[in-house]
Amino acid sequence: MSMQSELGEGPAIVEGLLDGALGRVRALAAEVTGRDIDLVVIAARGTSDHAALYGQYILGARNRLLVAPAAPSLVSLYGAAPRLRNALVLGISQSGRSPDVVGVIEESRRQGALTAAITNDPSSELALAAEHLIELQAGPERSVAATKTYLAEIAVLAMLSAALSGDDASEEQLRALPAALRLALETEAVVAKFAEARADDDECAVLARGFHYATAREWALKLKELAYVLADPYSAADFQHGPIALVHPGLSVLGVATTGPALSGMSEILNRVSEAGARLLVLSDDEAICSIGDGVLLPRVPEWLSPLVAILPAQLFAYHLARARGLDPEAPRNLSKVTLTL
Amino acid sequence: MSMQSELGEGPAIVEGLLDGALGRVRALAAEVTGRDIDLVVIAARGTSDHAALYGQYILGARNRLLVAPAAPSLVSLYGAAPRLRNALVLGISQSGRSPDVVGVIEESRRQGALTAAITNDPSSELALAAEHLIELQAGPERSVAATKTYLAEIAVLAMLSAALSGDDASEEQLRALPAALRLALETEAVVAKFAEARADDDECAVLARGFHYATAREWALKLKELAYVLADPYSAADFQHGPIALVHPGLSVLGVATTGPALSGMSEILNRVSEAGARLLVLSDDEAICSIGDGVLLPRVPEWLSPLVAILPAQLFAYHLARARGLDPEAPRNLSKVTLTL
Repeated sequence: MSMQSELGEGPAIVEGLLDGALGRVRALAAEVTGRDIDLVVIAARGTSDHAALYGQYILGARNRLLVAPAAPSLVSLYGAAPRLRNALVLGISQSGRSPDVVGVIEESRRQGALTAAITNDPSSELALAAEHLIELQAGPERSVAATKTYLAEIAVLAMLSAALSGDDASEEQLRALPAALRLALETEAVVAKFAEARADDDECAVLARGFHYATAREWALKLKELAYVLADPYSAADFQHGPIALVHPGLSVLGVATTGPALSGMSEILNRVSEAGARLLVLSDDEAICSIGDGVLLPRVPEWLSPLVAILPAQLFAYHLARARGLDPEAPRNLSKVTLTL
Repeated sequence: MSMQSELGEGPAIVEGLLDGALGRVRALAAEVTGRDIDLVVIAARGTSDHAALYGQYILGARNRLLVAPAAPSLVSLYGAAPRLRNALVLGISQSGRSPDVVGVIEESRRQGALTAAITNDPSSELALAAEHLIELQAGPERSVAATKTYLAEIAVLAMLSAALSGDDASEEQLRALPAALRLALETEAVVAKFAEARADDDECAVLARGFHYATAREWALKLKELAYVLADPYSAADFQHGPIALVHPGLSVLGVATTGPALSGMSEILNRVSEAGARLLVLSDDEAICSIGDGVLLPRVPEWLSPLVAILPAQLFAYHLARARGLDPEAPRNLSKVTLTL
């Protein structure tokens, strides 16, 4: 049961980061400000790419930084690196061993960009390639599908956003997170019950918008990896541009929506999808939205931190759905822990 | 049968763009070069967002431009615009009426960025908001799901890349495209046969890498919109990071791979997926790759232009699959032509 216990480590990991990594994060933020950087490029794959997506939204909305995905293939396949001039280039990788992510950092450093590695292995190639290193401090991840390191990655990005904004309120909000994460873990019994009720679903759509688009992407990936459910993640905005055609009575639709500017639009689309006969499961800190379908009530935190809280019940749902489907979430087929994309 | 006839208009549309839009594209390229711009931000939704993805790869690989998605929600939901300084900001929209895309262009222009609209409606809000206008000249799109305008959008981006590189070879390669597009349309009988054989598939994965990642995304969207197939697009690189767990005997997997740096990696993963028992359909200009599964042989063009050639059989497949499944591709359920995302 190593995955379930690793999920339980989340609050302590975030606490550890707030104690142990804040200095390094502040040093990186000071250099971003000092060099008047307004562009962040992020190289990442798989789960870490979803962390990057969270970074795109919070660094954009809170710090007015433009965040671009690195498209690591450009360097690794085509040998063509975009000109980077005055950018912060982040490489995010649990293992620190994705050659294409390392390649982007090496090329960026060659061009004189500011580079930083966010990784769980401080002696990895990625850690050695970058100027700045922020260690995830999550301990070894024994389960093949990344769960606690996703939480640690987005926690580091939230800390970076707070350090860049430099206001005390953000830091206080961060300090209150571990308590909220513990409350989020208490949803497990409800989540497991909903998972059992959906054991026969082979497909589903996962909808969110804004800060939670990353949550939807990562939730869908876990559902695929662990429960072999063909889970399709969408920005609710894009969903209306076509995929809504797929909704039919009985289709399982999962939604994430917490208090903030995206809430009313999400409420509208979830109601529309429900009226079309979909079976909804909603993660939300808003009781009215929870009542549109099966609802998992989340502890309320400031919107920019809500993806940290929401991902725990989402991961637990994927874990319990896998078990309800008679699968072993510890040993997904065809998967290995480190993927060497070249 | 308006969609089928609109698909047939592709070669003439590209011919028309090469005759009628090259001047405006060159004027835009001259301003990008003159202002020493090395960052492109693209605002788009749905199908146009897949065109943006093609733009990200070719402008990066061929012109060393860093391309960032605009995340229109940042402006429309959070009222927070990243600082843009010296960027080219492109708004891509068939109708020119997506309020959030218009919002990004308006905000960018306010900040002093270079702005351009790529749209089928020269009197639309988007066209009026931007400094530069490149008209798609595709004629009215009668079918609800966008097909010919996707081709026109990526043709304009290819023309922009050629104009920025300023070499005669690129322009000659563009001039040869309409003939290759006509050959690509001749695959229709083969494509229709494969579509009929897969009429019972309710799900599939669509794999590609590099320049064709956009093709995979757009193909999957058409399969959802028209044939109600839960089609999941992946970068083949990301696919190995988890979703490969989903492959089981009999799963339908569609792949796109043409001659270039991505070919050998694609060959490897398609062979691996085939050995795991998947039923492969491959679009390729390489006979060896075609022979891994059901193969549709594409006319060979330079790699950067191959997404224009590959999308036609992909769209035809979605069209014929819809008909084989007893659906009306002209009237997908729940869809409307213009989506007003706010």
